[in-house]
Amino acid sequence: MIAGIFSRVSLESSQELYVKKIKDGTVIDHITSGYSLDVLKILGIDGKDGEVVTAAINVESKTHSHKDIVKIQSRELKPTEVDKIALIAPNATISIIRNYSVTSKKLVQLPSLIKGIINCDNPSCVSNAREPVDPQFAVDLREPVRLSCYYCGHVMEREDILKQF
Amino acid sequence: MIAGIFSRVSLESSQELYVKKIKDGTVIDHITSGYSLDVLKILGIDGKDGEVVTAAINVESKTHSHKDIVKIQSRELKPTEVDKIALIAPNATISIIRNYSVTSKKLVQLPSLIKGIINCDNPSCVSNAREPVDPQFAVDLREPVRLSCYYCGHVMEREDILKQF
Repeated sequence: MIAGIFSRVSLESSQELYVKKIKDGTVIDHITSGYSLDVLKILGIDGKDGEVVTAAINVESKTHSHKDIVKIQSRELKPTEVDKIALIAPNATISIIRNYSVTSKKLVQLPSLIKGIINCDNPSCVSNAREPVDPQFAVDLREPVRLSCYYCGHVMEREDILKQF
Repeated sequence: MIAGIFSRVSLESSQELYVKKIKDGTVIDHITSGYSLDVLKILGIDGKDGEVVTAAINVESKTHSHKDIVKIQSRELKPTEVDKIALIAPNATISIIRNYSVTSKKLVQLPSLIKGIINCDNPSCVSNAREPVDPQFAVDLREPVRLSCYYCGHVMEREDILKQF
């Protein structure tokens, strides 16, 4: 394949900003820098279902040095989605936009006990046996998150958790 | 995990636009609607190496009904990266930005013969044997792309190709 075969086109539009305010939807701001694509994965967004989404990765932040941002048009998040986002981005804020106005803006919160969102990745853990036992974890460290299984003590870190999303 | 535990924070910043013009870098515009995350994958961008990137997914387009856009700060693309993007987004334009100005804007072009970018996914194809044979494909359809192997005639479609990126 011959590289660099192009035809010239006009130059007028490339400098324009392309992210408009959204009329209705959700803005997830202050996502841990570099983790917005993981947030999209948590939300099941791969682009193919037509949802209008923008993601800004590793942009400058006033409060932290850098952050990610995701804007999703015409969608509000489910509580379990918010809980999963809190695990990988515990400083994220979630704003609901209606008719171009922010109707609520809230900070996600990581509880001290995580229940029912992820499974212990120790195959010998009782929570993975055919017992009626819900997986449950203590939060040992907030960011980057480190969890320990309530049943077997197995430690799970952010990258282990992301594999389940 | 208790869903929906939030603390209130101030509302002032959520309506702001957050995508600034980039000083130096690359804008990939007119990406086939819904395929910008695949473009990021082609470019090896997962957010974790600190590159400043924005992606707009399924936004309105003047020429097609919808499109995707990717902006990457401080990076210019390699010819093989452009060739891979042409396979999944044959109408994409690639603009090089230097000091806030567009120094070139070009349309990617999909040649009629694809060579050396992807492998035939027919395991029996001679190009997968230990022969000194480079994989080679004819472009039967441009968008969505459909290729046929020069050696075995095996047909590969867009989703087959994306698995190799």
